Amino acid sequence: MADYHIAPFDCLAEQFERLPGIGSKTAARLAYYMISVPQEEALQFADAIVDARRKLHYCRICCNLTDKDICSICADERRDKSVICVVEDIRDVIALEKTQEFYVSYHVLHGVISPMKGILPDMLRIKELLSRLKDGTVKEVVMATNATVEGEATAMYLSKLIKPLGIRVTRLAYGLPVGGDLEYADEVTLTRAIQGRSEL
Amino acid sequence: MADYHIAPFDCLAEQFERLPGIGSKTAARLAYYMISVPQEEALQFADAIVDARRKLHYCRICCNLTDKDICSICADERRDKSVICVVEDIRDVIALEKTQEFYVSYHVLHGVISPMKGILPDMLRIKELLSRLKDGTVKEVVMATNATVEGEATAMYLSKLIKPLGIRVTRLAYGLPVGGDLEYADEVTLTRAIQGRSEL
Repeated sequence: MADYHIAPFDCLAEQFERLPGIGSKTAARLAYYMISVPQEEALQFADAIVDARRKLHYCRICCNLTDKDICSICADERRDKSVICVVEDIRDVIALEKTQEFYVSYHVLHGVISPMKGILPDMLRIKELLSRLKDGTVKEVVMATNATVEGEATAMYLSKLIKPLGIRVTRLAYGLPVGGDLEYADEVTLTRAIQGRSEL
Repeated sequence: MADYHIAPFDCLAEQFERLPGIGSKTAARLAYYMISVPQEEALQFADAIVDARRKLHYCRICCNLTDKDICSICADERRDKSVICVVEDIRDVIALEKTQEFYVSYHVLHGVISPMKGILPDMLRIKELLSRLKDGTVKEVVMATNATVEGEATAMYLSKLIKPLGIRVTRLAYGLPVGGDLEYADEVTLTRAIQGRSEL
């Protein structure tokens, strides 16, 4: 006699287990939760998934996620269209927008170049970025890819493509996180903080 | 200008945030994952929820989760029907079944008595349990509620109801977890392990 199994429950738990960072115990717990909430709430959850998938797509200009033809950032006339901030994914746009400091346009690559994982430049939204640079309105491209090896390499790759067009290419600053303790900072971050030191 | 929001995405993230143990950052990450997987996979996930809710209900006899009229444990003729193991929820059944040691019938209470949380005895499946004890086939009821204050209190409450019927009431043993280090065991567990010591 094997373990006790109920097909629809196992199937639901398996679906939860496919989510990133969810192990089999948590998946079973979430599936159980989904069974024990009122029917209506569970169906709302299912609807939210179907709804999100049906309505969301990528902005025609910046490849950001949107439920319209052009995302609200690209449609915003007050933004500085001469600066494009290049990010890896839409969560980075959300993070940068939270600063309420940077009213520019974005470009979402949807990944970084990573030959190890089989992600090559033509699998990212690089063509779309380059075509935005043709009409001469863009004066600066800010690389805001993650501070990882792949993020760095992607920024370098793009800068080599964009600089010949006579457009300024910059990178977000490296340094100590605000509120962070110096003694807990890693050597690489500290080295970058020293190199990038500024006049007081 | 506020944060960047896309209604269907926020709605999906909110649904994930309602799950137990999922915070807002994880919810956003899971919502983003759900947007980036192939359409088919996302719809499978939604279907699994709808399917589980439509097909699953409680077993007429033991209140365990099942997609049939009577769950496969109650339907199993080889099991010892003279012993009922009382548990808090269906995950406990699954855990006990994994031992492959205990071929008895179960009864799922769907909670424990907890006046603090407003859960009173008549909100649990206690009536159903008592009605199973009437015909005299049951000789022993094993309390397998969790080793918490509420679990203990519920076991005590049930034992006071069941003992007068001339049925043996037992409790799972307390003691050191197998493979556990004695020095890391808490005092209460150690005290119980000492009290419950057995001849070698």
